[in-house]
Amino acid sequence: MQQLEYKGRVIKESFFNRKNINKYEAIFTQGNGYIGIRNSLEEHYVGEIRDTFITGTFNKASEDEVSELPNIADMSAVKIIIDGTEFSLTEGEITFYERSLDLSTGESLRNIVWKSPSGVRVELSFRRFVSLYNEHLFVQKVDLLCDSDVDIIIESGIDGSVTNSGAMHFEDIKRRVYEGKYMEYISRTTQSKVSVVQDAVCRLNKEAAVIPVMGRRTLANKYSLKLKANEKLEFEKRSVFFSTRDKELTVFLEDDRLEEAKKRALKLIIDIENTEYSELFKSSESVWKEYLKKSEIIVGTDDEYVKTAINFALYHLRIMVKADDNRVGIGAKALSGEGYKGHSFWDTELFILPYFTYTHPEIARTLLEYRYHNLYGARLKAKEHGYEGAMYPWECAWVDDGEVTPLYMGADIVTGEITKIWTGLIEHHITADIVYAIDHYYKVTNDIDYMENYGYEIIFEAALFWASRLEYIEDRDRYEIRDVIGPDEYKEHVDNNAYTNYMAAYTMKLALKNQDYLKNNNRKIYDALDLKLDIDYIKELIEKKLPKLYLPMPDKDGIIPQSDTFLQLKKLDISKYKNAEAVLGIYNDYNTKQLNEYMVSKQSDTVMLLYLFRDLFDYETRKKNFVFYEDKTLHDSSLSKSTHAVLANEFKFEEMAYKLFKGAISVDLGPNMKSSDEGIHSASIGGIWAIYVLGFGGVNIDKNGLNINPRLPKEWSFLEFPLIYKGSSLRVRIEKDNKVSIKKLQGNSVEIYIKGEKQLIK
Amino acid sequence: MQQLEYKGRVIKESFFNRKNINKYEAIFTQGNGYIGIRNSLEEHYVGEIRDTFITGTFNKASEDEVSELPNIADMSAVKIIIDGTEFSLTEGEITFYERSLDLSTGESLRNIVWKSPSGVRVELSFRRFVSLYNEHLFVQKVDLLCDSDVDIIIESGIDGSVTNSGAMHFEDIKRRVYEGKYMEYISRTTQSKVSVVQDAVCRLNKEAAVIPVMGRRTLANKYSLKLKANEKLEFEKRSVFFSTRDKELTVFLEDDRLEEAKKRALKLIIDIENTEYSELFKSSESVWKEYLKKSEIIVGTDDEYVKTAINFALYHLRIMVKADDNRVGIGAKALSGEGYKGHSFWDTELFILPYFTYTHPEIARTLLEYRYHNLYGARLKAKEHGYEGAMYPWECAWVDDGEVTPLYMGADIVTGEITKIWTGLIEHHITADIVYAIDHYYKVTNDIDYMENYGYEIIFEAALFWASRLEYIEDRDRYEIRDVIGPDEYKEHVDNNAYTNYMAAYTMKLALKNQDYLKNNNRKIYDALDLKLDIDYIKELIEKKLPKLYLPMPDKDGIIPQSDTFLQLKKLDISKYKNAEAVLGIYNDYNTKQLNEYMVSKQSDTVMLLYLFRDLFDYETRKKNFVFYEDKTLHDSSLSKSTHAVLANEFKFEEMAYKLFKGAISVDLGPNMKSSDEGIHSASIGGIWAIYVLGFGGVNIDKNGLNINPRLPKEWSFLEFPLIYKGSSLRVRIEKDNKVSIKKLQGNSVEIYIKGEKQLIK
Repeated sequence: MQQLEYKGRVIKESFFNRKNINKYEAIFTQGNGYIGIRNSLEEHYVGEIRDTFITGTFNKASEDEVSELPNIADMSAVKIIIDGTEFSLTEGEITFYERSLDLSTGESLRNIVWKSPSGVRVELSFRRFVSLYNEHLFVQKVDLLCDSDVDIIIESGIDGSVTNSGAMHFEDIKRRVYEGKYMEYISRTTQSKVSVVQDAVCRLNKEAAVIPVMGRRTLANKYSLKLKANEKLEFEKRSVFFSTRDKELTVFLEDDRLEEAKKRALKLIIDIENTEYSELFKSSESVWKEYLKKSEIIVGTDDEYVKTAINFALYHLRIMVKADDNRVGIGAKALSGEGYKGHSFWDTELFILPYFTYTHPEIARTLLEYRYHNLYGARLKAKEHGYEGAMYPWECAWVDDGEVTPLYMGADIVTGEITKIWTGLIEHHITADIVYAIDHYYKVTNDIDYMENYGYEIIFEAALFWASRLEYIEDRDRYEIRDVIGPDEYKEHVDNNAYTNYMAAYTMKLALKNQDYLKNNNRKIYDALDLKLDIDYIKELIEKKLPKLYLPMPDKDGIIPQSDTFLQLKKLDISKYKNAEAVLGIYNDYNTKQLNEYMVSKQSDTVMLLYLFRDLFDYETRKKNFVFYEDKTLHDSSLSKSTHAVLANEFKFEEMAYKLFKGAISVDLGPNMKSSDEGIHSASIGGIWAIYVLGFGGVNIDKNGLNINPRLPKEWSFLEFPLIYKGSSLRVRIEKDNKVSIKKLQGNSVEIYIKGEKQLIK
Repeated sequence: MQQLEYKGRVIKESFFNRKNINKYEAIFTQGNGYIGIRNSLEEHYVGEIRDTFITGTFNKASEDEVSELPNIADMSAVKIIIDGTEFSLTEGEITFYERSLDLSTGESLRNIVWKSPSGVRVELSFRRFVSLYNEHLFVQKVDLLCDSDVDIIIESGIDGSVTNSGAMHFEDIKRRVYEGKYMEYISRTTQSKVSVVQDAVCRLNKEAAVIPVMGRRTLANKYSLKLKANEKLEFEKRSVFFSTRDKELTVFLEDDRLEEAKKRALKLIIDIENTEYSELFKSSESVWKEYLKKSEIIVGTDDEYVKTAINFALYHLRIMVKADDNRVGIGAKALSGEGYKGHSFWDTELFILPYFTYTHPEIARTLLEYRYHNLYGARLKAKEHGYEGAMYPWECAWVDDGEVTPLYMGADIVTGEITKIWTGLIEHHITADIVYAIDHYYKVTNDIDYMENYGYEIIFEAALFWASRLEYIEDRDRYEIRDVIGPDEYKEHVDNNAYTNYMAAYTMKLALKNQDYLKNNNRKIYDALDLKLDIDYIKELIEKKLPKLYLPMPDKDGIIPQSDTFLQLKKLDISKYKNAEAVLGIYNDYNTKQLNEYMVSKQSDTVMLLYLFRDLFDYETRKKNFVFYEDKTLHDSSLSKSTHAVLANEFKFEEMAYKLFKGAISVDLGPNMKSSDEGIHSASIGGIWAIYVLGFGGVNIDKNGLNINPRLPKEWSFLEFPLIYKGSSLRVRIEKDNKVSIKKLQGNSVEIYIKGEKQLIK
């Protein structure tokens, strides 16, 4: 029996298996970019990972660990005791089970018919949603009906005895119950001193005896009542979340924020106490509708999986981003799990941002503003490493943090020692990736205001870093970039990673171009930046070094070497791993040092270069390199398949493209019940959108502007998606034979190259 | 069906119910006084409280919390996966289940026949023990046999993702695997900076593929193998524990202790890797035998419950004490749970110590030496409160800690606010209780060496505290002790609690007596103490105040008022709570403030005074007061029933005595499946021994020396117990009609009063 069902706008778990709970917790995560709540079940199970996050509340659990997004007190658990027996699906008998998440409204629904061990037949229904209307609000509803008279106990509250895999982030816990029902739980992060205020209130449709129950870090209300056979019990709970890092509290003095948060939490919980679940839901649903109107993608196919996948992506893309707060980025697992500690990587700029750039440019701008605020940490990191300019952290947490990549990970399978993590030290390409994203954003949106206020400064500072990073190799009379990790993280300490060198060159060239442009066309900005950054010095340095920067060219077989040594490495048959269901399998057989010695890539590396710059090499060289590297790429990163799918489509490997596409949409949504345990893969989800729109839809920006060169899969009859180009809102429809029609919904006329021909969309 | 079975030396859980797991975790706790490991099952269950403690490793989780014994990384879990299905008793079908703890060897055994959800019949047996031979060692063995060929995965290691109800005590985690099998986990407490080293090694009787698995705070070995039908798989695991607070490491410089602990842990684990389970068990078993030889109590009865109860007490009394380490006390829950945070209370001196004083005097001495080292904290507390001398902390943790009573507890049921805990501030009688225990110990053992080195100093300092504590009430021209909590903790802020005032007077009198004695008989000690403490000043102060100390006398009805206001309080019918199965029920109806207004006691208070001083009042007054207060006492403390049982027996209320006795032995061992969740009740367990020996056995010390006035219950044909009196080891046997015979096993002749007649035991 298939575990997952796909219904277009709805994904469904069709039977309960305790082994799979982590998968559903993650992919059914609810949120709004401010909070994220994994969809852990109301009743507890062994192995559950019950996480709730408030964006931006980063904390260091201890001196020897890095900042991470702390798991705050849980509000989602509801204990139900029927005639003395606690409801749990591992006991008794499940007669009916179905759980679904509506991707268009954010509501999850679980319907159960359960026979308790003592023989009571119980009908249960659990609904819940995180409001998109009021981002502080989480609402739950439980309906319960038994076939005989029973004693019921329902206990629910706020449980602060949670950790991040054992690491505790909170101290100074304060618990309180107002008027016997309004529960308040206040805690403060141990190092960053962020206070979190959580309030909850429950209500029932029947009279019940209620007592407050307090544990060390817990607080609950316990309701006891008698329920008649076939009488419906309705239990509702509203939970609200505030933190002293909340954007709307920044207008208060730091000392006043906690009091203000407490006031607001209590006011909100009292205000909504008596508003019906359905009312609260409607106001959230209408915001979802608005969002989907701007984002909706329609595919002409009967394949429900394909239809669901894009809705799944659009759902998670919305709940992963705090749309209006430029102090927070997007975590590699968004707000859906503890994986990667809530940190932002290049994933955001190269895999997630394109969606926002083309569909919600105001959100893309917020995210790129975040990177501007990151300049503080990036300058810090550059200094620490002995470089100039801005060297972006490989992993980034709070807006002014520097590098937060952990220094160590799990045990090496050969030596038994813990393994050093090098990415934070030597994976440098992110400083160019961010520049690429800015440049791309600017080309799509024409947002000169962003460039003047933030973009140019980042580009100059990034270029300065690269110029200072280059190493002069005397015997070759050229500059090289040695000892780095490229996108292929199997290869540590490589020299002249092609991706890195080209991206560095691109960044420096862009700085020169901007310098020239500003000097001649925008003297005011030029002078201001020059005063601040000494642009002339940057220009000089680049002009001195860039012409001698080594850029790896195709060898005699036409292959661009991924790095100096890659093409000399031992060959390895990786079909065993490529066809395996579970990723990461190769680490069970080879350790990092060994993997360094084989011609095998974790993910798109040189291919990524071909993807970002379509005109860097001629078509045949690009195609040849794609084939060469695809054969050696394990896609052992969720970032990889979507890139390959787009290029496979471009190179007309239709079958391969569709297979890679199916693989890419399956990273979280597919039948692998383990791969998403620690959270969904944000970049992969951005990649899903990319295949639909940039791959099959053929959307691309080059020096001429926007191109649409679609290649619709033969399985589809049409594809429809929105685009916002230079402020104009468009609806694009691709039909059989790649026929393109574009409707302008809003804004000025724009020029677009459709299959190579310039058209004015009026 | 009865859940618990009592087999004299064995207690048995006869069927599995997830609701009861916490009870068995606690009462089946294994340990040796150095480590304590709750008997959580090898497989995880929702609601489990999986604790492992190393005595003395106290730490403050955060600035606003008090020191507590931290829950260290778990070594007991073993994950077993059969054909892809994880073994768990809540799934599949249980065909046979039995779990027992052998109270005479410390080994627990669980036999199960389980039908997996996929239909495999699995026979499982789980054995484990904590060694009494090598206190660093914990050993487990799992036997497994299936009725068909299966794939087996066994995963076990070290899991540091544990907390104390959500509070995390460790940082600076280091994990390592040596030679692919020796797992090492090192962690350090956050505030007290105690490093804990835990090593483990597993072995199987079959070849298996093994890979190390590491999580953030976890480390395990994962074995995969194929098992044929009816082939027996034997899995063994040895776990070892060291900490930088270990007594044997104190000879090393502080900086070297961690390295030494690592060395020792690794050496031990390698040394014993290939020693059979049975061998390791035998060496521990033989130490248990030695212990029981010295402690055994035999009751002539067919009532297995009564026979089991004393073995249960002797078992827990052994595993609760680190016999050779005077830097650690006994926690109110021993090492069996997080309740009371591992802190020591008066419980030790008045309820647990008598057992050791009469049976293992060398251990009693160690415990009283601990109180000598506590003087540091006691002097600190006195100073903080503006008193002189030594004011013992109500709750005590590490040897030189001051007061560690938490300041707040759970919510007040009326106001919803958290409740302030007053005991640490105003429950003062402990400073006299400790003196009483020292005096009693000295009378039983004649250990003058203890007195000279430790005892006298404590007594003088305690007496000085009391003298400074007295308040002169001008209009009554007398001293009073106002604003205290007596043993009855329902009554906060009372004046002239009889127990407290009499105990204070007793302490000061004893100091005067000792002053006089030392001055005239032991000038060397006198001078040394006088130099250090200024004994003459203490004497002067006491002589000035003591004659005017108010000591409540029986009123016109012969009742000694528990405190100034007690006899004027409102009456309350407490039969509802007295007969209730669960204690603490009254707090659901009344809050602390309300309970203050009723004539109801939580536990023996004035009765305790009658218990400790048999000659303070005449027999009739004592009896009348016992009857009066017993009627108003809820026994809402596990310390209470044993005291009342002993006195009821003395006053010839035979039926009541036996009922109270049955109640007292049922606190942990009885059918209440919730009362021991947070750990066993150490004082209650000491109290069990007290009823057998001090109650029915009639053992008592008065000014003449040791008395034996037995009153054997009519249900018993005889009672046999050991006693060590003034260094002589005796075996006492009571038979029908309270006939007493005493056999001297070792030591000099001693004089004993048997039923009022002096006899010389040769």
